[in-house]
Amino acid sequence: MGKALIIGAGGVAGVVVHKCCQNSEVFEEICIASRTKSKCDELKEKLQGGKTKITTAQVDADKTEEVIALINSFKPDIVINVALPYQDLTIMDACLATKTDYVDTANYEPIDTAKFEYKWQWAYRDKFKEAGITALLGSGFDPGVTGVFSAYAMKHHFDEIHQIDILDANAGDHGYPFATNFNPEINIREVTANGSYFENGKFIETEPMSIKRVYNFPEIGEKDMYLLHHEEMESLALNMKGIKKIRFWMTFSQNYLTHLKCLENVGMTSIEPIEFEGHKIVPLQFLKAVLPDPASLGPRTKGKTNIGCIFQGIKDGKEKTYYVYNVCDHEECYKEVGSQAISYTTGVPAMIGAMMVMTGKWKKPGVFNIEEFDPDPFMEALNKFGLPWQESFNPDLVE
Amino acid sequence: MGKALIIGAGGVAGVVVHKCCQNSEVFEEICIASRTKSKCDELKEKLQGGKTKITTAQVDADKTEEVIALINSFKPDIVINVALPYQDLTIMDACLATKTDYVDTANYEPIDTAKFEYKWQWAYRDKFKEAGITALLGSGFDPGVTGVFSAYAMKHHFDEIHQIDILDANAGDHGYPFATNFNPEINIREVTANGSYFENGKFIETEPMSIKRVYNFPEIGEKDMYLLHHEEMESLALNMKGIKKIRFWMTFSQNYLTHLKCLENVGMTSIEPIEFEGHKIVPLQFLKAVLPDPASLGPRTKGKTNIGCIFQGIKDGKEKTYYVYNVCDHEECYKEVGSQAISYTTGVPAMIGAMMVMTGKWKKPGVFNIEEFDPDPFMEALNKFGLPWQESFNPDLVE
Repeated sequence: MGKALIIGAGGVAGVVVHKCCQNSEVFEEICIASRTKSKCDELKEKLQGGKTKITTAQVDADKTEEVIALINSFKPDIVINVALPYQDLTIMDACLATKTDYVDTANYEPIDTAKFEYKWQWAYRDKFKEAGITALLGSGFDPGVTGVFSAYAMKHHFDEIHQIDILDANAGDHGYPFATNFNPEINIREVTANGSYFENGKFIETEPMSIKRVYNFPEIGEKDMYLLHHEEMESLALNMKGIKKIRFWMTFSQNYLTHLKCLENVGMTSIEPIEFEGHKIVPLQFLKAVLPDPASLGPRTKGKTNIGCIFQGIKDGKEKTYYVYNVCDHEECYKEVGSQAISYTTGVPAMIGAMMVMTGKWKKPGVFNIEEFDPDPFMEALNKFGLPWQESFNPDLVE
Repeated sequence: MGKALIIGAGGVAGVVVHKCCQNSEVFEEICIASRTKSKCDELKEKLQGGKTKITTAQVDADKTEEVIALINSFKPDIVINVALPYQDLTIMDACLATKTDYVDTANYEPIDTAKFEYKWQWAYRDKFKEAGITALLGSGFDPGVTGVFSAYAMKHHFDEIHQIDILDANAGDHGYPFATNFNPEINIREVTANGSYFENGKFIETEPMSIKRVYNFPEIGEKDMYLLHHEEMESLALNMKGIKKIRFWMTFSQNYLTHLKCLENVGMTSIEPIEFEGHKIVPLQFLKAVLPDPASLGPRTKGKTNIGCIFQGIKDGKEKTYYVYNVCDHEECYKEVGSQAISYTTGVPAMIGAMMVMTGKWKKPGVFNIEEFDPDPFMEALNKFGLPWQESFNPDLVE
């Protein structure tokens, strides 16, 4: 079928590469590119020998010119952006300059402030339309699969959807009293940022972690979950016609929150350097050094994730409820691709999104969020590529 | 009356110096000596101008020869040892060599291991007796006043004491989410060490922090308290004839324990250096650098301490209960001597103990624990010098 340029060489990129190689009919050739070429070479080392041809390249994705040069030399059909969210715009510019399709998993953020807004990328709509190329935004799990679930619910199960609750549960246990999956600074930001939800045409801000529910998740059991802001609510509020309320919930254990709070209380999460034995040291950097290396968590994490959407609305004049979700097992993911479920659930949909565009199923000029396309082929691919979904027509509702 | 050599220049030493100066009839002249002479000079600066003459000296208390030289030059009637517990034996050796009386506030510990045992100092009994000089061990609050309380209860209120519960409550609030009064390593050791109590002739070890009670303290209210090992139980078990059970309890807030546990969990209390940005850094040392400076707590600590003993026994053939305790206010202490109650409750009894020996009331050759002397003049001095005691004949008992 064609060629994909994968920019990024972290945990998610590793999953994308694995999954492209499992789907060599579509991905005949891939190039893995990142700032550190040796990481790309490691991935290539692990995965070459199958039907998908793998090459690697060095690229600084902050520099549009470098990305353009790489695209011109490799000539991919699509760029799969699994680099940093700060780099979305420079990569989109390179795609425009070379008329190459584009897919990513997280919205653009300015480097100095986390906004979780689509406005910067939506500003590219006309340019991509005129260039005749497709940009598919947010093709991870959440955002990503949650949008596909929404489009699928609308297409097959409802005449009107009034409410969506997105539930993201991670019941993984790495056996450490405390560790973070990634930069603890981002964890801190997550739980100290204001929450928000959509209701009756507008977003309502809430105090950080002030709204908590206990939910009994299928295959996981009861977990504390907290209302957070999350980027897919912005596009779903626009694209789901007639929607009245959208909320996003994420589970955090009391143990996790307690450790984070204590570390914040004593000043260990501060990014202000302090004088120590003649050196300037950032407490958060030192904390990262004493905490378990996130890369070490993969092989030891047990348990499952459950991410899905509960829809409430009307079908044939009657009230209806529908819950669709995926359960993913950390250990099985690690066995299959060497990453636990957090990377797996993001990487698989990134590959599928790229496949949708490359196979022409989701090919149309412009910049789109995932719920704007026909969900059926994506839903089919989820079952085929490791993220099977389940459904319930009588779920517990979130109060 | 006479001259005292005070070795040490920390928080407790500061209180001792203040209190000696308030008692210039007994302490006509004092010399403050420590490794860092400038600290001694600071204390002198603050307190000179009263009736007590103050001099200072540099001394390394690890070196018996240096202490002997200082004693020979200053010619004190007594040495008040408020240096480190590691230095008790070198200072006792110097007292022996110069035939000078000795008083301290905490038992000798080898530097590499906290044993809280009197055996090293009790081994000096014959030598002090032969030299005709007095060593008074553990003249702080606990050990110290708790032993005086025990002797007083025995003398005035009981024919037999069967049980002693020593209760040490600190309800001080410094307004920080977390801070330690002193080295957090010592705090950690305190709550991770096995507890122990005396019953029917022997000590019984308990898991760390495994025995908890809630007690409603006079003037403080309900606090969680935990059974710990504490050194005065060793001497009281010997000196209180007929005693069947002794327990020691200290209050810790859940908040304090949670922070300590989280910091331990993430490795921030470790004393194993880690490689960080090309330097070897001990996590505990770095933690101390981010935590509030213990010296900064004094001016901002509000609230009270309550330390005392509950006795159960027999008087005139009937069961009797007696509770004697001191309540000390952090802010008032700071106003009076520039230290909060933790240092104050240790420093005042150290001065009183020295006074007991210097005035001849407690002067006899040998090495003694505090409960071996007549408690009445000490009890009177407590009321006079800032640690007034209160009593109750119908206290809540500890289950």
